[in-house]
Amino acid sequence: MQRITIDPPQLQGNQLVLTVPQLHYLQRVMRLQTGAKFQAIDGVGTLYLVELSADYGLVLEQSVPAGIELSVAVSLIVAVPKIGLDDVVRACTELGVSEIYPVTSDRTIVQPSEQKRRRWLEIAKEATEQSERLIVPTIHPVQSWKTAMVQIIGQRKICAARGDSQHLMSCLDLQESISIAIGPEGGWTDRELQQSIKLGWQPVSLGQRVLRTITAPVAVMSMVSGFLESPKISPYI
Amino acid sequence: MQRITIDPPQLQGNQLVLTVPQLHYLQRVMRLQTGAKFQAIDGVGTLYLVELSADYGLVLEQSVPAGIELSVAVSLIVAVPKIGLDDVVRACTELGVSEIYPVTSDRTIVQPSEQKRRRWLEIAKEATEQSERLIVPTIHPVQSWKTAMVQIIGQRKICAARGDSQHLMSCLDLQESISIAIGPEGGWTDRELQQSIKLGWQPVSLGQRVLRTITAPVAVMSMVSGFLESPKISPYI
Repeated sequence: MQRITIDPPQLQGNQLVLTVPQLHYLQRVMRLQTGAKFQAIDGVGTLYLVELSADYGLVLEQSVPAGIELSVAVSLIVAVPKIGLDDVVRACTELGVSEIYPVTSDRTIVQPSEQKRRRWLEIAKEATEQSERLIVPTIHPVQSWKTAMVQIIGQRKICAARGDSQHLMSCLDLQESISIAIGPEGGWTDRELQQSIKLGWQPVSLGQRVLRTITAPVAVMSMVSGFLESPKISPYI
Repeated sequence: MQRITIDPPQLQGNQLVLTVPQLHYLQRVMRLQTGAKFQAIDGVGTLYLVELSADYGLVLEQSVPAGIELSVAVSLIVAVPKIGLDDVVRACTELGVSEIYPVTSDRTIVQPSEQKRRRWLEIAKEATEQSERLIVPTIHPVQSWKTAMVQIIGQRKICAARGDSQHLMSCLDLQESISIAIGPEGGWTDRELQQSIKLGWQPVSLGQRVLRTITAPVAVMSMVSGFLESPKISPYI
């Protein structure tokens, strides 16, 4: 069934006020007729079953489905790569990420505009709908790595491409939110790594091969979601 | 250090005969001078330390490094997507895949040419060098899903997008080669799933969200490599 993301103020009682682009999408692109049903999500957890009327939607049911989102919030701190963050946002949204902090670092070359952030948010919305998630990830404004990393609490891991750090999957626990920082092309500088460790971030490895900066976030989200969703391998169950 | 992939016949005693493109790459693109050192891999496990001479290489050392490749062979059977298999081959090579079988299935739309396969092999070589792997994955010719799946032995899993299959990471073991089949846009048909199960393939889930066909192989390789490389979560160690 078609799924769209709405803003909570679009709901007025059991009537869903549709925007012009949403009406265009439902009626012209998806060719839904009056009386056809579609799903709407508010992006923060609620799913609505809606019937299309002439130019609005009639809410038939609403629910808060369980088990689709990951059991703890997973945030990624990603040093913005030269190209490819669009694909990273899309794939990591499918894999269940809660928040993405695009950051600059010593070796970051690009300085993305606010317009770029709006594009990433659009991609996150699309991927939320397509992957049948309920919550649209937060895309934070671009900031320096340190500004982001001082404010984050919970389990905090920083990926170190070289060295003999413990593997990410060996040092996760199920109980607390997880944040993982991924460096730019060329990796974090030693200074950044040392400062992060002082701030309480644990250096981790993603395995014995060198991953590109746009592969690493997808690998991280896959491993973390696999860890959270496969009870057999967890030491807690 | 720069790394190139060579064919074993290029080695003649301790002399490495360089092809014209390799010489161009080392001397013009990477600007190595005579006397500079680089690494060469034969793509099947051996690493050579080589000194650049006028128009050939002098092998200084050779070794078979351990621990870089995954401990068991991991194969992917991938129904060819409309676009994006180039990126899948690149990312899965970084993550340690041994063999990729691009296959056609009921819902596969494209029929890639042999030229396309040569391109995927080139990408696999590049990604092997960049990720500092030693073994170049095998890219099989495009064939029907069933032709590929009847010939494969070991642990065999087929990803089912819907339903309540066990999670991939809950049903792996460390002892035997692993093969995982990933369907096209729209997924495997019921007929394909049922026939695969009869052939001994176990249906598995990759989690509670719907992944695109080009995200799933990368998620699979991330989860499997994480499983194989993080001793704490393994029931065998």
